[in-house]
Amino acid sequence: MDYQRLLQDVMAVALAGERRGRPADYIPALAEADPSAFGMAIATVDGGVFGAGDWEVPFSVQSVSKLFTLALALAEGGDGLWQGVGREPSGNPFNSLVQLETEQGIPRNPFINAGALVVTDRLLELTGDAAGAVREFLRAESGNAAVDTDDSVAASEARHGHRNAALAHFIASYGNLRNPVDSVLAHYYAHCAIAASCRDLALAGLFLARHGVRADGSRLLTRSEAKRINAVMLTCGTYDAAGEFAFRVGLPGKSGVGGGVLAVLPGRGSVCVWSPGLDAVGNSVLGVAALDALTTATGWSVF
Amino acid sequence: MDYQRLLQDVMAVALAGERRGRPADYIPALAEADPSAFGMAIATVDGGVFGAGDWEVPFSVQSVSKLFTLALALAEGGDGLWQGVGREPSGNPFNSLVQLETEQGIPRNPFINAGALVVTDRLLELTGDAAGAVREFLRAESGNAAVDTDDSVAASEARHGHRNAALAHFIASYGNLRNPVDSVLAHYYAHCAIAASCRDLALAGLFLARHGVRADGSRLLTRSEAKRINAVMLTCGTYDAAGEFAFRVGLPGKSGVGGGVLAVLPGRGSVCVWSPGLDAVGNSVLGVAALDALTTATGWSVF
Amino acid sequence: MDYQRLLQDVMAVALAGERRGRPADYIPALAEADPSAFGMAIATVDGGVFGAGDWEVPFSVQSVSKLFTLALALAEGGDGLWQGVGREPSGNPFNSLVQLETEQGIPRNPFINAGALVVTDRLLELTGDAAGAVREFLRAESGNAAVDTDDSVAASEARHGHRNAALAHFIASYGNLRNPVDSVLAHYYAHCAIAASCRDLALAGLFLARHGVRADGSRLLTRSEAKRINAVMLTCGTYDAAGEFAFRVGLPGKSGVGGGVLAVLPGRGSVCVWSPGLDAVGNSVLGVAALDALTTATGWSVF
Amino acid sequence: MDYQRLLQDVMAVALAGERRGRPADYIPALAEADPSAFGMAIATVDGGVFGAGDWEVPFSVQSVSKLFTLALALAEGGDGLWQGVGREPSGNPFNSLVQLETEQGIPRNPFINAGALVVTDRLLELTGDAAGAVREFLRAESGNAAVDTDDSVAASEARHGHRNAALAHFIASYGNLRNPVDSVLAHYYAHCAIAASCRDLALAGLFLARHGVRADGSRLLTRSEAKRINAVMLTCGTYDAAGEFAFRVGLPGKSGVGGGVLAVLPGRGSVCVWSPGLDAVGNSVLGVAALDALTTATGWSVF
Repeated sequence: MDYQRLLQDVMAVALAGERRGRPADYIPALAEADPSAFGMAIATVDGGVFGAGDWEVPFSVQSVSKLFTLALALAEGGDGLWQGVGREPSGNPFNSLVQLETEQGIPRNPFINAGALVVTDRLLELTGDAAGAVREFLRAESGNAAVDTDDSVAASEARHGHRNAALAHFIASYGNLRNPVDSVLAHYYAHCAIAASCRDLALAGLFLARHGVRADGSRLLTRSEAKRINAVMLTCGTYDAAGEFAFRVGLPGKSGVGGGVLAVLPGRGSVCVWSPGLDAVGNSVLGVAALDALTTATGWSVF
Repeated sequence: MDYQRLLQDVMAVALAGERRGRPADYIPALAEADPSAFGMAIATVDGGVFGAGDWEVPFSVQSVSKLFTLALALAEGGDGLWQGVGREPSGNPFNSLVQLETEQGIPRNPFINAGALVVTDRLLELTGDAAGAVREFLRAESGNAAVDTDDSVAASEARHGHRNAALAHFIASYGNLRNPVDSVLAHYYAHCAIAASCRDLALAGLFLARHGVRADGSRLLTRSEAKRINAVMLTCGTYDAAGEFAFRVGLPGKSGVGGGVLAVLPGRGSVCVWSPGLDAVGNSVLGVAALDALTTATGWSVF
Repeated sequence: MDYQRLLQDVMAVALAGERRGRPADYIPALAEADPSAFGMAIATVDGGVFGAGDWEVPFSVQSVSKLFTLALALAEGGDGLWQGVGREPSGNPFNSLVQLETEQGIPRNPFINAGALVVTDRLLELTGDAAGAVREFLRAESGNAAVDTDDSVAASEARHGHRNAALAHFIASYGNLRNPVDSVLAHYYAHCAIAASCRDLALAGLFLARHGVRADGSRLLTRSEAKRINAVMLTCGTYDAAGEFAFRVGLPGKSGVGGGVLAVLPGRGSVCVWSPGLDAVGNSVLGVAALDALTTATGWSVF
Repeated sequence: MDYQRLLQDVMAVALAGERRGRPADYIPALAEADPSAFGMAIATVDGGVFGAGDWEVPFSVQSVSKLFTLALALAEGGDGLWQGVGREPSGNPFNSLVQLETEQGIPRNPFINAGALVVTDRLLELTGDAAGAVREFLRAESGNAAVDTDDSVAASEARHGHRNAALAHFIASYGNLRNPVDSVLAHYYAHCAIAASCRDLALAGLFLARHGVRADGSRLLTRSEAKRINAVMLTCGTYDAAGEFAFRVGLPGKSGVGGGVLAVLPGRGSVCVWSPGLDAVGNSVLGVAALDALTTATGWSVF
């Protein structure tokens, strides 16, 4: 298959739509993103890497990092993680406190902010450096040693992070954090503020297409664990639009408010798309449109 | 593959667990179900049908019928259906009114009761006989002309149906029903009260494994529509445990409080399991356990 | 005190404000109300009755009737009523189902629609004719035998009453109605659709100012019961604006979407004001403004 | 009236009931309170002070302090306060985040924790020392220079204060705090941790019975402002049981989880009762029972 051509075609289809969305504006560093940026990359389980547009430009991965914190926390600590975080769709916006209150401090799933804070807390407990573990993993899988936290973005998130601080304190009030709130928040901001490109993330996501095996051939997760992460991505990976994403795209995917979306083609490869303009629930407008076009063109779907 | 043996094995694994659950008790007809009943059937796209246990005993399909009303309403009326019902997980118990109020009378998805009432209303508008259309479909796909509504169950549901009546009136208050509330409820109760066996339902679900093609070779839905129904089943098909079901089983599935669960293996076949004991969210305990064992034993998963 | 002059003055103050609100539009009969209608009456415990503007024009009492159903149900049945309905402010719009679901079918208080349905049900059980009992009471206290249900309004409410039907079925699903849903709704619509004037209602409300004694000197409620109804009115009588009403007006009051507001001056008298234009939560804009002006001018307040 | 005898009688009535409740246990300092402590004091507008039981024993005033922060913030800053905090009953437990999220960071009223944080923030802005202002006021009104913050209690609250920290950060995320979160919390804990006796608090609450006039004859609030604080107390002063308190007691009152309840008899006096055993919503069991007995015995009520 001519992946290069395929990517160009589906990006053209996405651009033919009229909606563009707007970059996240809750911190200045994200609001300044170039709204016309648009890149896409595919990495295949047999070693191919293809890209189009701004596919090698680093962007703020934001919540896409939650996929890696989850995988690493499971790899390091096993199923005990699920004592502190559920795996049901939330049916509420990604940073909602309502459900957390109803459910006694156990966040609904690892991909809403509350759940990612718990996962970060556990990864910090397991490794001593949660953000560092994510950076190391991304560097190793992508082969790009330059992948790093953008400290100015992390600092900006901390300055505007009252809502995440509220979530963390609230979880702590139920006894569901093992590290000090400030440490958890610092590591959370640091892994969300990692800058990486579509190329980097497509390569880093391949372990899920390979059912748990890393780039160097070592096994990070069992086949069953890898499938289960895909299941959680499909049901919970795109905020309050997971049903819509499954309906339109039909692949497990994880989005971030930096405009990135990483999707997995189990057994085949992974694809990452980036464009900063977001829709109302926080997913990249062109990103979702391009993935929709991709799966329409190829018939790729888990269903 | 020796499907017969496979079914016996996974049923044995399920029975080895200690939990049994309890039959639904909100209407007498369901409360009287034999809690030790347990059957399972697989139908394959190449024509095989296999079963074990009480796989030919009819039971009350209840919410499993919602899968067929959805498919028929889409086949008859197309995408306009999605104006009146969403496709996001609800994050709330299956008969909750809360979300309906927040979201202005548009139910979250076609598989919660509120959404199924809207789908029933549309199918009634399109066919003049919503319950009859479901019965005809089940008979045709299963080749079993005896599939029929159990009128005593339907009558019992109507007598104890204040909550569904509340849902229907509430949806009507937002202008989202096109037929009189009483007609919609009557057809809703009539298709929920259909009695069919694991064998019947596995055969009737095959159109989804065949990507939209019926038993007689005619096309009910486009390939894309069939995939999309699978997506909605995976994210919303098992009440407030859809995430857990995707995590453990990894297949699109639809459950009913009669104790039936119908799951789809896209491109391969469909499987139906029945046991009346339910867990706290309304899914068959042995049914989910057997599907879990089945996918563990075979590696079948959409992921 | 020159009550006549007082009423004219406070109505002038209210009219000097710019806001007017809009008549309720959920049923045609109310939407057709003359938005410029404005009347006010005071009845005193020593027998005086004073009025200004359209104080003798009948209007649809709507939820003001809930005060009388409550008083009559307590008079007939005593404290057992509080088993089926609470007395806490709801903190939610007057017809919300959310809280009802959380609290297992026990409405928060007798003045939200859900609670009034329960009270109507009990009064129906106690008297055999709930709406008739309210009409008789209003006629007796006001001395106006012409007070009656406007059948066209009641019929219109029934036709557009899906939300109340939803509430009633929902309460019935928790076993908290003793009569058939249809009967309860019919009596509810019939007492809400009573037409009465400011004069009629001010006189009918005097029993609360007289601490439980009716116009003919007989005792309807104990002193303690009468005080307690005043307490419920103050905390719950004006929908989701009870706090604001207590803050601005400082008197127990009950409003209706017909534009009427009845307030009690314990030990002194009662006052009723009517103007159809409503604010966002369903209280008469000029009505509340006039009561605010009245209490500002006189210093009347329970505090 | 023989107030001394009256207090003894009503305390005896309260003690005749079987329920006792349990002291608050979320911080050790409160959990250690003597559950058998019980005191009551009345202060009259004509200068009398009467007490019984442990009426001169200091206890942790906790949320009773919110009454004084509100009065002082209004006295210092006027009605602008109501831009940042509402005056409606919450219909939810006192420290709920749910409603805060629905209503965009504007707490429902000044007596839930969220609202008291906003009031503390404004008082801090107005005076530079919110807790100090409350202490000074209590000392001046009670004539007891020993009234002071119990630093060990304040420190304990801070250590266990994740939920209040969550509330404060959440409010800050909506831009509704003007001082740093840490400062607001420190002052909040410091005024909640003030230790004062029934005698002190009854005297300190007299300004509301005197319609705004302090012990030294100077005016703190206008007559209208004082009435309005009473209205907010009546509708919101006892957590999610304000309706019940108004129903049973019929007086404006403010409770705290230290077991104190301060109630106002407008124009007549104020009464404070203390007993550490709390009911399910956080009000003193014996305290509410004693006030109920008091108003039953005397007929005192605002209604």
